[in-house]
Amino acid sequence: MTGLGVGLIGTGYMGKCHALAWNSVASVFGDVERPRLVALAEVNADLAARKAAELGFATSTGNWRDLIDNADVDVISVTTPNAFHAEMAIAALEAGKHVWCEKPMAPLLADAERMQAAAARSGKVAAIGYNYIQNPMIRQIKALIDGGSIGTVNHVRIEMDEDFMADPQSLFYWKSEASSGYGALDDFAVHPLSLLFILFGHVETVIADMVKPYAERPLASGGSRAVENHDIASVLLRLECGISSVLMANRSAWGRKGRIALQIFGSTGSILFDQERMNEIELYQNAGEKAEQGFRRILAAPIHAPYDRFIPAPGHGLGFNDLKIIECRELLSAIRGERAHLIHFDDGLRIERSIHAMARSFAERRWVSLLES
Amino acid sequence: MTGLGVGLIGTGYMGKCHALAWNSVASVFGDVERPRLVALAEVNADLAARKAAELGFATSTGNWRDLIDNADVDVISVTTPNAFHAEMAIAALEAGKHVWCEKPMAPLLADAERMQAAAARSGKVAAIGYNYIQNPMIRQIKALIDGGSIGTVNHVRIEMDEDFMADPQSLFYWKSEASSGYGALDDFAVHPLSLLFILFGHVETVIADMVKPYAERPLASGGSRAVENHDIASVLLRLECGISSVLMANRSAWGRKGRIALQIFGSTGSILFDQERMNEIELYQNAGEKAEQGFRRILAAPIHAPYDRFIPAPGHGLGFNDLKIIECRELLSAIRGERAHLIHFDDGLRIERSIHAMARSFAERRWVSLLES
Amino acid sequence: MTGLGVGLIGTGYMGKCHALAWNSVASVFGDVERPRLVALAEVNADLAARKAAELGFATSTGNWRDLIDNADVDVISVTTPNAFHAEMAIAALEAGKHVWCEKPMAPLLADAERMQAAAARSGKVAAIGYNYIQNPMIRQIKALIDGGSIGTVNHVRIEMDEDFMADPQSLFYWKSEASSGYGALDDFAVHPLSLLFILFGHVETVIADMVKPYAERPLASGGSRAVENHDIASVLLRLECGISSVLMANRSAWGRKGRIALQIFGSTGSILFDQERMNEIELYQNAGEKAEQGFRRILAAPIHAPYDRFIPAPGHGLGFNDLKIIECRELLSAIRGERAHLIHFDDGLRIERSIHAMARSFAERRWVSLLES
Amino acid sequence: MTGLGVGLIGTGYMGKCHALAWNSVASVFGDVERPRLVALAEVNADLAARKAAELGFATSTGNWRDLIDNADVDVISVTTPNAFHAEMAIAALEAGKHVWCEKPMAPLLADAERMQAAAARSGKVAAIGYNYIQNPMIRQIKALIDGGSIGTVNHVRIEMDEDFMADPQSLFYWKSEASSGYGALDDFAVHPLSLLFILFGHVETVIADMVKPYAERPLASGGSRAVENHDIASVLLRLECGISSVLMANRSAWGRKGRIALQIFGSTGSILFDQERMNEIELYQNAGEKAEQGFRRILAAPIHAPYDRFIPAPGHGLGFNDLKIIECRELLSAIRGERAHLIHFDDGLRIERSIHAMARSFAERRWVSLLES
Repeated sequence: MTGLGVGLIGTGYMGKCHALAWNSVASVFGDVERPRLVALAEVNADLAARKAAELGFATSTGNWRDLIDNADVDVISVTTPNAFHAEMAIAALEAGKHVWCEKPMAPLLADAERMQAAAARSGKVAAIGYNYIQNPMIRQIKALIDGGSIGTVNHVRIEMDEDFMADPQSLFYWKSEASSGYGALDDFAVHPLSLLFILFGHVETVIADMVKPYAERPLASGGSRAVENHDIASVLLRLECGISSVLMANRSAWGRKGRIALQIFGSTGSILFDQERMNEIELYQNAGEKAEQGFRRILAAPIHAPYDRFIPAPGHGLGFNDLKIIECRELLSAIRGERAHLIHFDDGLRIERSIHAMARSFAERRWVSLLES
Repeated sequence: MTGLGVGLIGTGYMGKCHALAWNSVASVFGDVERPRLVALAEVNADLAARKAAELGFATSTGNWRDLIDNADVDVISVTTPNAFHAEMAIAALEAGKHVWCEKPMAPLLADAERMQAAAARSGKVAAIGYNYIQNPMIRQIKALIDGGSIGTVNHVRIEMDEDFMADPQSLFYWKSEASSGYGALDDFAVHPLSLLFILFGHVETVIADMVKPYAERPLASGGSRAVENHDIASVLLRLECGISSVLMANRSAWGRKGRIALQIFGSTGSILFDQERMNEIELYQNAGEKAEQGFRRILAAPIHAPYDRFIPAPGHGLGFNDLKIIECRELLSAIRGERAHLIHFDDGLRIERSIHAMARSFAERRWVSLLES
Repeated sequence: MTGLGVGLIGTGYMGKCHALAWNSVASVFGDVERPRLVALAEVNADLAARKAAELGFATSTGNWRDLIDNADVDVISVTTPNAFHAEMAIAALEAGKHVWCEKPMAPLLADAERMQAAAARSGKVAAIGYNYIQNPMIRQIKALIDGGSIGTVNHVRIEMDEDFMADPQSLFYWKSEASSGYGALDDFAVHPLSLLFILFGHVETVIADMVKPYAERPLASGGSRAVENHDIASVLLRLECGISSVLMANRSAWGRKGRIALQIFGSTGSILFDQERMNEIELYQNAGEKAEQGFRRILAAPIHAPYDRFIPAPGHGLGFNDLKIIECRELLSAIRGERAHLIHFDDGLRIERSIHAMARSFAERRWVSLLES
Repeated sequence: MTGLGVGLIGTGYMGKCHALAWNSVASVFGDVERPRLVALAEVNADLAARKAAELGFATSTGNWRDLIDNADVDVISVTTPNAFHAEMAIAALEAGKHVWCEKPMAPLLADAERMQAAAARSGKVAAIGYNYIQNPMIRQIKALIDGGSIGTVNHVRIEMDEDFMADPQSLFYWKSEASSGYGALDDFAVHPLSLLFILFGHVETVIADMVKPYAERPLASGGSRAVENHDIASVLLRLECGISSVLMANRSAWGRKGRIALQIFGSTGSILFDQERMNEIELYQNAGEKAEQGFRRILAAPIHAPYDRFIPAPGHGLGFNDLKIIECRELLSAIRGERAHLIHFDDGLRIERSIHAMARSFAERRWVSLLES
């Protein structure tokens, strides 16, 4: 039994998602050793034991450091709250384990920098769970762009909107505290930035506006409390490659549930995408008969690898959780030393720097360059 | 070790799909014992061994009857070509195993009838893999209808279209042979019928028209061969409950990839669905301000159970394979003796009778009643 | 002043629509003499006078025969209730006037036959107001089909649905009386048939099912009255050219407002259209990279003549009333003796024969051939 | 004959559009005197005569000042190139005529200011042809917002995109000269600003980024010429009412033909609109069953006045040119001294000031307040 030994810290939604991916990756892809689900850590032994049974892990512990010390564990999934990522990821890397850490890296830039340094020292794989980039349709977009299907890209708009903070009557909770971050900017903007990075590279200059749709929110105890961060962020930016872009994020956008909408404009065509219809892209090309030009709605199909590993027929649809299985497969490639479609700690750090620059541009009401800091 | 012992016969796409479901059902739902993947059968021992490793089964065999004889196997997934279903399912039922058999039951009505009889005798669960009915959005449609959200339903249109037979240049293969069945009718129409059954009940009278878009198809050896069945079928029908319906199926429909489109008309509203956008339904209600009425696009969300078992956020999207995991969970309920959202052999048999009646109505150019035969 | 002299009988919605067209056709097209709006007839002199002022006609009368006798009138628009069409159109034709008559020709087939005969005798233009065929996007569909863009067409589905009869609480009125016609069949099915005719030719055999969603409807006086015709009709049909088709009509379809949905399947592609989005068509072609195939949404543009006569920029949108202006321009071509994109009385009669055949196929529960009668 | 006397200067597309509106307004609305099409001016007498015949004007002239001097002309449509608007509109106003002038008012802010001053002095109606605000669906949006249907609006995104400048191979022409204006900003941004104004009021602060997708464009004579203005503009802005907004304009956006997309976010719901589907809006409300919430696609219908004046049935669709007829009707109301849904020179001037502020914010790379200048 030679499959990789897996440890999992955290069993919230993302922990479950990692567990499902570790469970399914061999069956889906058929070209990798079945990973061994060695050990799972949770905040206490009871919960850990229950979750291990549920998620198929062989052993469990209430102390995550047991996984660090477990020689049978080769790779550790870190899916705990963001504030814990740095300590766990660094410990794992220093113990010679590969790390698969959920995004964002850390609330504080200094912590993210320490994580990146630890990864660089370790020589191990240290990847961030930016699952949206794993969508075969995003890869198809990349293939189209790299293949010149829409010529030279000159402008990109990207929106990420949900409505879980949209109700002004919902109670104040930690997401509205300044200590949790800037609001929409770090909650949401990291995802569009991961897509912009994969498709076009890193950000150079930014100017952001941010808004509090509700100045205060009610408390369970009665009365209300002032909201400390911003549910809406809008950013003008320029990428290093010269492309101009507008990035918009709104976590109070009624009716939007998982929207990540891309509009990519090139010199010979355009591409549209919306994560709410994640199995579709739209492609316009200035080609062929003028009377027949239009946006073409392309449905995900086996030809858009690795969709074929999941379903042999087109148009049947992958789901959100399937993206994590693909990400897991990429991680296994990286661990094998192969080229992988992943965002590692070094690029992840640059994404997080962009977020902090956006916040600064808002605070100082001016364009901020990423080269400044 | 108390989880159910699982045997799997066949590892084509549906076999893989069953394996993924058996692998994931406990992790996803968290409320069932993790099934034990006991044994897998394929056409020869080598393939079986390779697939067992890939799909996580403990043992393997080149002889499917080994599974029948294996006391540790409690339930058998039958995912072999349709012609083998009867023999395997009946053997399994007679050996006291539960059976989870892919659709359709059998090419010959007589075989389907024998399967149903065996199931009735056995007292075991004998369910058919009609996965589309497991979509939480289909359940939501059912809840809407049963709750009176669109009043009394009076008319239903349902279309199932794909394009895998659309190219007249693709070589003649067994799907165009009469021995494989009627064509679109049994390939496709069973799925819409499974949905009609779940939502409204069984069919009473039918009249069908069928078409061969291409009279012949090329042979690899040169020349061509006459097509023996029909890629397109259109059916007027009346359900036992009195609803009138139109059922259309086309496996030569360029551009359609996995379309199963429902239009349900009621006395106070309408519901639309298309499997190509399986995470959405559209609901129109004659309610509220006239100036604000319209079709409402509802995105799958945790409130549409069991979506919540997969993803805690709305609008993120289930995939086709997830439906099989839900089906597997329903099967476990049925085995526990609980009420389950499944199509068992008895109702499955009636679905297949409808197909044969449609073919007869075409051959005899007349309305055919299901009560006739 | 050499423009054609126009008479208008009837000033309901369609009368207004004709008036708008006569008023605008010269300005829009710029290549025809401005018609002279000579005389308008209504049921009494007062209404006629008021409408003439409103709609820009020079004179008015309460007696439509005055228009027949008016030597300055060259062409007469007949937009009165269907039961009056025959008398008026025949009188106009016999007086040597061209006739532009609203659809359908007449409730009774015998009347439609007399109209056709009168037209044939007269040598004048006798056209029916099938405005949907005038949509530039329908012409584009025809150009695509005729140019082989989707290969050989083998199957067509067409639906026409609205919801003006959908409310079971709305009072019984003449549209539910048998004397008004078959219901959805003549209210709606003529429009799809006009499109099928323009694109593919006439119908050969039919079998229809018809449904009354509501057996009775309330009376203003209290109580209720039995509904005498059918709001829903579904028809399997074969065209003379061999294409198989399904035609569906529902005037009780909640949420549908002006839906006329076409699905055209060919050997190398498909075309979709919905009148509710009348400025769009969708085209799928099995061409180019497989990974990039999809339905292409084509927006109406100047290249789709005569859109260019209305708007010089693409994607800005024609409206329903604009179709009548195009129809009017075609009528002027026909009057000039040029080839025109119109449905004349001879083909219109065949469309109405198809309707009667459908009703018969329902009554007799059998396939009916158009060659029978 | 008491209808208003109309003069028209200019017969390009917008001139034709005005002529169509003057021709049809009485027939469509039935509640206003039929305007008299008195005189038309073009650059020379021949063209003027030809256009007068075509568009139905009684007289014509090669000298636009003849219209100013014509006592029978009560209102003048100014549809000439933007650079001529000021001189003509001011002359007309000073001669005591009402003015209906196409947008924008003038390339130079000083000219727009003179126009506004002339209008103020004259006491006559001086309206700008911002036709998009006349869409009944825009009025419905306004009614929804004003009626509190989506609570308090907190954020708005608006995009205007077309592709007439998208081809880098198309020859350099005057639209790329600095003298023609800023590019997308004045070509396009005025339209979104007209909508923002009608719905929410004026702009307070702005910061813009602008891009040249193509640094140079080819010359017919060979070689190329540097592009002097920007085809793409993106603007963060705050309205006087406090709402934050993002305005995006791109005249090189392949595939976009007439897109003006609005996303309006409020405290209890959202509204979406896209001019390419101008007969639809989408409304999301946080109301009713959670499991049934979704964006509702509302089709234009008679209840959305004045759609009813055009068509008595819902979902049949107005066209772009119909908006001008509505605008004409509003103008007649204003002339009668009634409240009208129009943008007059005073608010139009403020819209144009916003454009200049955006350009300045780009040039100076900073937020600019409208109160500054």
